[in-house]
Amino acid sequence: MQKHKVDQVGSLSVCSILNNPPAIDACRRYIETDLNRCFTDASLSVPLTDSSPCELRRAHELNSLLGPKGSEQAVDLLCDLHNTTSNMGICFIVDSLDWVSFHIAKYVQRKMPSSPVRLIHINVSPSEAYSVDSIAKHGFAIEVGPQPHGVLRADIYNMMKEAVDHSLEWLNKFNAGTTFEGEDVEAFVFEKSVDYPRDPETSDLMAAVHPKLQDNDFKLLQHGDPIFSLFTGETVNYEGEDLYPFFINECAYYEKRIAFHLARKKTITLPPISMKKD
Amino acid sequence: MQKHKVDQVGSLSVCSILNNPPAIDACRRYIETDLNRCFTDASLSVPLTDSSPCELRRAHELNSLLGPKGSEQAVDLLCDLHNTTSNMGICFIVDSLDWVSFHIAKYVQRKMPSSPVRLIHINVSPSEAYSVDSIAKHGFAIEVGPQPHGVLRADIYNMMKEAVDHSLEWLNKFNAGTTFEGEDVEAFVFEKSVDYPRDPETSDLMAAVHPKLQDNDFKLLQHGDPIFSLFTGETVNYEGEDLYPFFINECAYYEKRIAFHLARKKTITLPPISMKKD
Repeated sequence: MQKHKVDQVGSLSVCSILNNPPAIDACRRYIETDLNRCFTDASLSVPLTDSSPCELRRAHELNSLLGPKGSEQAVDLLCDLHNTTSNMGICFIVDSLDWVSFHIAKYVQRKMPSSPVRLIHINVSPSEAYSVDSIAKHGFAIEVGPQPHGVLRADIYNMMKEAVDHSLEWLNKFNAGTTFEGEDVEAFVFEKSVDYPRDPETSDLMAAVHPKLQDNDFKLLQHGDPIFSLFTGETVNYEGEDLYPFFINECAYYEKRIAFHLARKKTITLPPISMKKD
Repeated sequence: MQKHKVDQVGSLSVCSILNNPPAIDACRRYIETDLNRCFTDASLSVPLTDSSPCELRRAHELNSLLGPKGSEQAVDLLCDLHNTTSNMGICFIVDSLDWVSFHIAKYVQRKMPSSPVRLIHINVSPSEAYSVDSIAKHGFAIEVGPQPHGVLRADIYNMMKEAVDHSLEWLNKFNAGTTFEGEDVEAFVFEKSVDYPRDPETSDLMAAVHPKLQDNDFKLLQHGDPIFSLFTGETVNYEGEDLYPFFINECAYYEKRIAFHLARKKTITLPPISMKKD
């Protein structure tokens, strides 16, 4: 098991880990299978064999190091830092109804009024939650974009850094006994995914995301709006109820058959929250 | 030798070739060595051995198919289509003083008044020219960006398509006997490259491109302007004569130790041009 340096940030012990070093070296999302889909209860309980993908091994390793998922020994909070090619600004992606994560997102939103900070709620059960942050007691991902793969953009880097700094600030206040009052927060609740038009036989792309949809993450998509430009020159329009698109044209989602996700905007009422006194 | 389909576009026989299929499959610029640096006279005359990089083999193959470079059998014109993560708009990159390429660039510029179409002149001798288009009698690259690696953007795709269509149009007019009058064209003439600040021992990056420089390709960089944000928080300012930056923060150039190129803006007077009568 790798040893990791633990930094002290006020009352917090913070440990930074690179989740998938071989993929980082290869400048790819993953080598054999998407690491950030390997943290369901099912994946974490499957026995490892010689032919297990390296990412499944790494998921088991991270689960031993930071979990085990669902146990009392699991770390208190895990924040997974991600980049996307989509024009997402800063997003807090929270799987389940985790009030700590929701409060942090709201706090960061208030602290960064000039940046687009949004909360995405995936709404899956902890056992089905597939991302690395699901192995901690509390957890969320911070997704920042747009940034091309293999490129470091100072604006995006600075946004991510600021979001992390404010999250640590919230946690220090929480540890110091601050009560965070109940309040309403606006969340984008995941509804469904939409694939690119594909050739039914070869699965090859038959279209690109329409220029009017490209980069318009979180702008209401209405029935009849253009969503794809077919390579024949025709336009495909959206049919369905009005929803909010996000992860539009994300690089890693072509293979997952996702051109964009759709969400419903919902107001979630957060309860007041403070440190449990023992 | 691979066989390639030849399309007839008016008077032109057009053949489209994917230069580096294994790299395309791997979604990388190249597998072993940068193909688009393999077309100098020196590289094309080096004997192939078992340990030659696959790209050097491919360069020799393309040279047999489309060249040989500098010979009478070489194809008339080669146009190399490229994407970049830099905010370059549409660029015609011409190595040597090739009037045909310059005239085409000027024509496309005029035909696409609402798009940023620019001409970059690298100014190297044919024998030192390293890109695939240097093996034809005339040639240039069309570079379009910004587009992340592995992402298809309809706006960028459409710009590239329009630039290619107008180039074919020019060639058809040229073949039909049209005389293109002499005129002035504005070119960005390559001057030098600037690397990221790096740790002198490890060569690791110590900075990112400054947000005020990022995406500002072809905007005059003046003495004292910020160019890098050091990870310590400090800013590095530009020292030197006023020049025009391009290929700012291009993904494939980190390893080449290039944060951006600098060019001098120059007016080049094109001679009138028409088909030679035999």
